[in-house]
Formats: sequence, C-alpha cells, structure tokens
Amino acid sequence: MYDVVIIGGGPAGLTAGIYARRAMLDILLVEKIGIGGQIALIELVENYPGLSRIEGSSMVQRLEEHAEEIGLSVSFAEVERIEDADDHKLIHRTDGSVIETQCVIVASGASPARLNVSGEAEYTGRGVSYCATCDGFFFRDRDVVVVGGGNTAIAEALFLAKMVRRIYVVHRRDELRADKILQERAFKNEKIEFVWNSVLEEIKGKETVKKIVARNVKSGEIQEIPVDGVFIFVGIEPNTDFIECQKDERGFIKTDANLATSINGVFAAGDCRDTQLRQIATAVGDGALAANSVIKYLEKNAPIAPLHKKEAN
Amino acid sequence: MYDVVIIGGGPAGLTAGIYARRAMLDILLVEKIGIGGQIALIELVENYPGLSRIEGSSMVQRLEEHAEEIGLSVSFAEVERIEDADDHKLIHRTDGSVIETQCVIVASGASPARLNVSGEAEYTGRGVSYCATCDGFFFRDRDVVVVGGGNTAIAEALFLAKMVRRIYVVHRRDELRADKILQERAFKNEKIEFVWNSVLEEIKGKETVKKIVARNVKSGEIQEIPVDGVFIFVGIEPNTDFIECQKDERGFIKTDANLATSINGVFAAGDCRDTQLRQIATAVGDGALAANSVIKYLEKNAPIAPLHKKEAN
Repeated sequence: MYDVVIIGGGPAGLTAGIYARRAMLDILLVEKIGIGGQIALIELVENYPGLSRIEGSSMVQRLEEHAEEIGLSVSFAEVERIEDADDHKLIHRTDGSVIETQCVIVASGASPARLNVSGEAEYTGRGVSYCATCDGFFFRDRDVVVVGGGNTAIAEALFLAKMVRRIYVVHRRDELRADKILQERAFKNEKIEFVWNSVLEEIKGKETVKKIVARNVKSGEIQEIPVDGVFIFVGIEPNTDFIECQKDERGFIKTDANLATSINGVFAAGDCRDTQLRQIATAVGDGALAANSVIKYLEKNAPIAPLHKKEAN
Repeated sequence: MYDVVIIGGGPAGLTAGIYARRAMLDILLVEKIGIGGQIALIELVENYPGLSRIEGSSMVQRLEEHAEEIGLSVSFAEVERIEDADDHKLIHRTDGSVIETQCVIVASGASPARLNVSGEAEYTGRGVSYCATCDGFFFRDRDVVVVGGGNTAIAEALFLAKMVRRIYVVHRRDELRADKILQERAFKNEKIEFVWNSVLEEIKGKETVKKIVARNVKSGEIQEIPVDGVFIFVGIEPNTDFIECQKDERGFIKTDANLATSINGVFAAGDCRDTQLRQIATAVGDGALAANSVIKYLEKNAPIAPLHKKEAN
C-alpha cells in the first residue's frame, strides 16, 4: 500500500514527487511514455524562471536527473482506471496489474487536439504531425502547413522555418492568440505566410500528404495548397478518460483551492485540471500544492508515525 | 504610463515580468532590496524542479540573468502607497516620485515574523538574527538558539550545525512541523538539541546577546540558556502595508482564481497573498497566472494595437 500514487511524469507530477519524497511518503509515479510530459515536444523553453532559454530535451534531462536524485520510483505503465475503495484507491493498469494506495495525484496532462478532418487519421505519421520538434526535420526544404494561431502554433512555425522552404499558417481568425513577441518574430519571417480566416477542411495525398484544402470562413472561398506536411496545433485535450470524477464539458478535472477532486483522497495537478493557464510554471506550482494537500490529508486520515525525538539535556 | 508595474522582484514578480515581457507589454518592476526576494536568505534550494540542489545565492544569480536576458526594467525603490484612479493607478514611492500605470501586480512577498519579546529589537544585529545564511558565520564555534519548528527553522539549524558548536532548538510544541526528511536529518545531528514545549521569553545580554530565558508551557518551568546568538524562524508577515484592499486577518491579500484583488486592475502573486502554500514553485505559478490575467485585463479594457499582419499571396 502506497501513501500516494502520482499518475503522470510531466512537470506537475514530478514536482509533486519531489515534495512527497521530502515528506518521506511512500510513493510511486506511474508514467505512460517518458519523464517530462509535453516538454519533450517543445523545441525551446524561454519562460521557466531560472532556466532561461533551455531546449525542451535538455529540460527533460534536468527533470530526469532531479527525479533520480530524490530517489523517485517510476513505473512505466498505462492506467486504465482508478477504483475508489473509500479509505484507499486501486489503480488498475492496462497490463491487468493493480496498485493499492491511500491517495492519488492525477497529473496526466493533456494531448494535442485533433482536427477531425478527412485524411487526418489516414496520413498521421505520413505527413500529418502534432510535433514540429519531433518531425520537422523530415520536411527540410519542403512546403508545410501549420494549423492554429496560439503560442504553440507560432512557436512551432518559427522552429520549422529553420528547415522547411515555406510555411502556410492557416488560422480561422484574422489575428493570432500567440504572445506578441512570437507574433512579431513570425510576421518578420520571410518563410511564413498567413492564410487568415480559414479552416483546413481536408488533407489529400497518395502514400503521403500532397495537398490541403482550406476554406475561407468569411468568403466561403475554397483554396488548395500543395504541401508535403501538415502540422496541427489547435489546442489540447485532457488525458482523463481513466478517471470518473467531476469534469468540465471538455473533460478537464474540476478541483477546489487545495486541488482536491470530487473523489476524497484524489487530487489533480497541471494541464489535466480545469485551470486558467497551462504552463510549466503553473504546473510546478500545482505539483507542490497537490503534494502539500496529500500530506495534510494523510496526517488527518492516517497519521504518519512521529520520528524519534531527542531531548535537550 | 506603463501597462503594468510589478511590485517585488522575488520569484513571483520575476515570473510575472518574464510573461509580461513576452506579451511585449510596457512594464516596470519596482524592487526594494534585491532580485530574488527571500531566496537570498536560503542556503540551499532542493525543491525547485529542474534545479536540483542549488544554493540560494546561485539561484538569485540565475534569476538576475534571466531578468537581464528578457530586458526587464528594474527600479530600486520602495513603494509607499498605491492610489486607485479607476482607469489607471498611481504608484507613490517613498522618495516622493510617482509612477502611472494601467495595472499593478503586487508580488511584495513576506518578511520574517518577530517574536516581540524583551531584548529582541535591542539585540537585532548584535546576536539576534532572522537569517542563518546571512549571519551564521559570525557564530562559528559558539552556541546559539534557534526558535521555531517549521521547515525554515530546521533547515537553518542544519545549516548552522556546520559552523556553530551547539544549537538549542526552542519549539513551543512537542513535535516539528518541518518536512520529515529535515526532521530526520536534525534528529541525527549531534550538535542539535531540542527544547520542547517551550517559548523564548526574553533575550539578555550586555553589548551583545549572552543568554535567553525559555519557559516550558506545560510545566511552567523557567530555564536560562547561555548563548551568543538567537536565530528566529517563527513564520512570516506579509509586506502589504502599502496597499489598501481586501486582506485576511494576518494581512495577506485576498485574490480570486485569476489572482485579481478587490481593486480592479490590481493583481497579487506569491507569498503576499492569501494562499495555501508559500514555495518558490507556487510563486512562479502565481507569477505566470497574474501576468496572464493582466494581459486579458488590458485586452478587454485597453486593446493592445494589433501587430502588422502579412497576407498569403
């Protein structure tokens, strides 16, 4: 029986692990893919205080080292469901194994949202990608489309501009949501062209992507753009299918000020919860707070044995 | 007229600065003493994800570099009061100068709490200290008292144990609040003795501290302990005297989920607000969120001019 099982090894889960270890709790972190979560998908992190301009991959390495240094136990497995047995919880993994724990911190993050257009699923991995850092290199000196207008879309377009020939940014509105500093860089970049007020309607190809069909939402005009790659950055979807608790209409987990979910003993931290802002900085804040709430919960519900005390003589 | 003035250069204020700069806002950070806030008082930071085991002074340096790299304007001055002129705010500094701004982020942090006992004010700087990292070296091979039982008290006692001869930890309860990992280290340390269930009642000396008077709150017994130094770590008090807004009974600023205070256009982040946990990790989360709220506020109340856009040809 663990004191707490943390689901997810991104910045929220790792920070919760650091704090829980310092409280000397018995913990296990369960991670599906790899430490660092979505940081692994980022080329450059510029807004994490104390690590100015660090590559996503380097930051992942630092977090791995930090986890190792504190002696965090990590189990690479996928969680199928969480069973609430009142005073404890059962974590069912997809391999059929079950872990018992008193508390759970859900820090399972989010995944890139799909457009759900014709050709998207068919050509995923054959021209359609959700990660420029991962796949950009395959499209060097080719033409690509980026779909989206937020921070991720524009940062990834700027990254792609280093290697591809031309980038069409297809965005459904007539202005970007991205940070102004990213907008300015994108507007200055010769390789980047904007297709405003437009949505991607279809991805066509043979064995790989050959072109996209965009529709102008104002004029109704249809435009075909020949490209070899389609990078989709239209937001995120929470990884919360494995847990039944109160969620918002998009599936993000609802929490109170202590990050408690609607299930007693289960807490949520980071991108998977119904939060105002999803950043590394906010994820680490959540992780620390969730661990603190677990410590308080355990002290109330199952007092931790006091350590041996010494008296002054 | 600034878009936003950030008051305080600790981790919350700096993070807000990073995010506001990336949004290309016109900002000024006003700091009373030095960048880094209370981090400058910490010997070793072990729980900030990505920077495992970093000295407080090194972390301050990294934050200073980060601030410089993003081109953050810092004004070293003290704020006397914030005047709410509805659509903008006036920041009155103690030197009589006034700054105009649309928004304010209060990230003024907190300061060590005083015990308010006889001799405390008199001997501050002459044996009484609130910072082991700053003053510990003056007491090498001497005996000192540490007052408190939380994380700061125990971490600082462990730091002092490297240089002083003997440490008496005077704590009013019979167990510590500090993280278990710190407790374990303290209980193992030969130089540290605990004076349980006791409060410090008086600090006596001549030119410098000579002894303290402790009273056992259970037995009423009075004990004199001869020491050269007294280190006081009994919590924090918010630095919020300069702002009139809704606060809790201890003076911490009340905020909503977006970190808005009771004054329209004024936000609060970090240790100065009424929060569940005061850590570097939570401060940076707050800083990012407060900046995000300022960006949204400005877009609603005074739209930021759109950047020049390019069309696809």
